[in-house]
Amino acid sequence: MNSSQLFDNIIRKRSFLCVGLDPETEKIPAFLKNRKDPLFEFNKRIIDATQEYAVAYKPNVAFYESAGSSGWSSLESTVKYIKKNYPDIFVIADAKRGDIGNTSKMYAKAFFEHMACDAVTVAPYMGEDSVTPFLSYNDKWIVLLVLTSNKGADDFQYHNEDGIMLFERVLSLSQKWGNNNNLMFVVGATRAEMLKDIRKIAPDHFLLVPGVGAQGGNLQEVAKYGMTSKCGLLVNSSRSIIFADNSKNFDKVAGEKAREMQLEMEQCLAERNLI
Amino acid sequence: MNSSQLFDNIIRKRSFLCVGLDPETEKIPAFLKNRKDPLFEFNKRIIDATQEYAVAYKPNVAFYESAGSSGWSSLESTVKYIKKNYPDIFVIADAKRGDIGNTSKMYAKAFFEHMACDAVTVAPYMGEDSVTPFLSYNDKWIVLLVLTSNKGADDFQYHNEDGIMLFERVLSLSQKWGNNNNLMFVVGATRAEMLKDIRKIAPDHFLLVPGVGAQGGNLQEVAKYGMTSKCGLLVNSSRSIIFADNSKNFDKVAGEKAREMQLEMEQCLAERNLI
Repeated sequence: MNSSQLFDNIIRKRSFLCVGLDPETEKIPAFLKNRKDPLFEFNKRIIDATQEYAVAYKPNVAFYESAGSSGWSSLESTVKYIKKNYPDIFVIADAKRGDIGNTSKMYAKAFFEHMACDAVTVAPYMGEDSVTPFLSYNDKWIVLLVLTSNKGADDFQYHNEDGIMLFERVLSLSQKWGNNNNLMFVVGATRAEMLKDIRKIAPDHFLLVPGVGAQGGNLQEVAKYGMTSKCGLLVNSSRSIIFADNSKNFDKVAGEKAREMQLEMEQCLAERNLI
Repeated sequence: MNSSQLFDNIIRKRSFLCVGLDPETEKIPAFLKNRKDPLFEFNKRIIDATQEYAVAYKPNVAFYESAGSSGWSSLESTVKYIKKNYPDIFVIADAKRGDIGNTSKMYAKAFFEHMACDAVTVAPYMGEDSVTPFLSYNDKWIVLLVLTSNKGADDFQYHNEDGIMLFERVLSLSQKWGNNNNLMFVVGATRAEMLKDIRKIAPDHFLLVPGVGAQGGNLQEVAKYGMTSKCGLLVNSSRSIIFADNSKNFDKVAGEKAREMQLEMEQCLAERNLI
């Protein structure tokens, strides 16, 4: 998927919602736990109930990997299910991978060839040759960590060389490796005010913004500082949608929560005359 | 395993060799390719042939993950095989993971509970709460990326705030989170001269040194600048051992290559009167 197609989907659905598919065995409704593949069963129902309001899904690989190969199998089934039933939806493997060149190539193979994800999140610490192997695929993306939503972001991301903070260097240098059709950036919603500065360095790139909802980020603020004339935002919400309820109706409630987010997003898009 | 036990193994085996188990389907001997689990078959033979000369194995997860859940299953079988047959050998999952707190916890679960690895490599970009969930296990370790062996290391790791480079900040700040019984650091052998500076900040911690062999690092240099009175080094070699030959005798040749490395290491240990 390229950036125009993604923007078209955003306009059509009046939504820039990305739903985080982070199922924890302990938190999924009890009645699903004795199914053959509880994680996939959970995801399938969440997907069916929320797909109308979402333009992207973001399974965080850790939640599958914690169960090893069987968890990986649930992840594979989930990506396959989305791509088969809702091929227009953008799938981001939230994996935060990154290794030396020949090894990053193997990770790219995992997410772009073995599975049909559209994007994978990548950690920048190891620099150019850890990132570029992911960029050699047509219509595939990386989402590079820039400024994350957690407290630990303060530890290294603000390391300041002559007024240029590390996250700013990641933001500017990586634009030499990719372009706004294959490179997005992670910027946490808990740091919405920073989006203004980020837009000075990356005016057009899509930003993936986690942290709205359970982590406390505010959607209006994110749109105010981060939205471009092509939207330029995917806002992720996970726990506040997928774990809003744990009864037999969990999927219906998740759908309602996604619908609420979509309506808020529709308003943000309308305020900027994008719809 | 704690650091004294690891040191005891080093002295007993006269070796600080870590063998990188990075099997690529294209590179493994043809006669193994029609086996039920070729990656595991390959590893099993490499392990049996090299275990006498190695104190650690380091499977890089990417090489398994590229085949998805079936690759993960080969990884699980490999770790299980080592722990069952050679329980004294230290197993490092080279995964370079790192995410917000509740997510890093899931990765820790994958490598320390679901599998019985002794250590996992972690990327520091997201700071303290992305690292500490891995540190709450007894006798388990993280190996934090500090200065990597690839060209891209120059892009961000030397980002310099008031004379303190990012990798130095990672090295010093992380010592507030862990200690020399649960925290090691990755320092590439291609930057052996930097080990002198690194030892000023981390005089006692074990260092995992990749890049000797195929990547061009020099063992004597690494030992000269990095060895402590408790050895303090695990030197990894992968391709130059495991892919030294691709005939039916590949394991025998791998064993010989490992033996050569062990002999060089024995000399380094003797020169410092550790054996």
